[in-house]
Amino acid sequence: MSDLERGSRLRIDAATEGDVPVLLRMIREFAEFERLTHTFAATEEGLRAALFGPRPVAEAIIARAGDEAVGFAVFFPTFSTFAGRTGMYLEDLYVEPRWRRRGVGRRLLAHVARVAAARGCTQMNWSVLDWNELALNFYRRLGAEKVREWEGYRLAGEAFGRLARKDEG
Amino acid sequence: MSDLERGSRLRIDAATEGDVPVLLRMIREFAEFERLTHTFAATEEGLRAALFGPRPVAEAIIARAGDEAVGFAVFFPTFSTFAGRTGMYLEDLYVEPRWRRRGVGRRLLAHVARVAAARGCTQMNWSVLDWNELALNFYRRLGAEKVREWEGYRLAGEAFGRLARKDEG
Repeated sequence: MSDLERGSRLRIDAATEGDVPVLLRMIREFAEFERLTHTFAATEEGLRAALFGPRPVAEAIIARAGDEAVGFAVFFPTFSTFAGRTGMYLEDLYVEPRWRRRGVGRRLLAHVARVAAARGCTQMNWSVLDWNELALNFYRRLGAEKVREWEGYRLAGEAFGRLARKDEG
Repeated sequence: MSDLERGSRLRIDAATEGDVPVLLRMIREFAEFERLTHTFAATEEGLRAALFGPRPVAEAIIARAGDEAVGFAVFFPTFSTFAGRTGMYLEDLYVEPRWRRRGVGRRLLAHVARVAAARGCTQMNWSVLDWNELALNFYRRLGAEKVREWEGYRLAGEAFGRLARKDEG
């Protein structure tokens, strides 16, 4: 078992404003891995505002081996009216290719779970691309269950603009 | 066309702390409609904290005809790392049964879209129960599209607790 497998060299900390460039690099790599570069429009400014602006909407943690950033997670709180409590949504969980299969993802996810539990959450949610077998297996092994019955919908582009411009009256 | 259809009698405003009891009543009705009362654990305290506490995680708007609350929406911000911008998640959209099919839902949704657009969002997301044909048709008519490829996952109960309790090292 390597040092990293025992976790002695891996450090996970909340990202700071100085981490924005390295976060953006890993987010771009993640978009490439998920074949979603056509949706990629992130900038350092937008990331900085979302994570460290006056109204932050998300948080990030970074896994480091020595000085090298090897993975990250981005998450934000949700609210379930029926449960009557906040939850945590995992927007991204990414590990650099050459650092995979060494427990880094599990460590990152456990870190998010601890943050969530400390804030009174009893569950986390996220989305997985249906072809990403490696991720699906990883999540199933942890005991995660697929959300059934619910279908995700999105209002975007012209349809969103039309509705948003509609007069109040 | 009735007054309500022209929208002259319907008013939509941000919920205030005094609306928590009426909101909770409508949330409970919504859970009954969605056959999810077994998941219902909401309380006035939890709702007040989530909407009006020191760290609010969601917002609510209420539609009123005269003094009568006839519908509501609850929503909270999300963040897309790839898009590099915030979005808006619609947690609940509910209209009292006898006020349905009069444009109240569309007015509530348009209100949320305006709030979202004012904050720089270019899209909204939500989830629909796959058997709720009335809702599915309503959303499709507005131009909403089903989110494909992505599967929702949830870590809850014992599996969440196990991960959250895991030691850092």
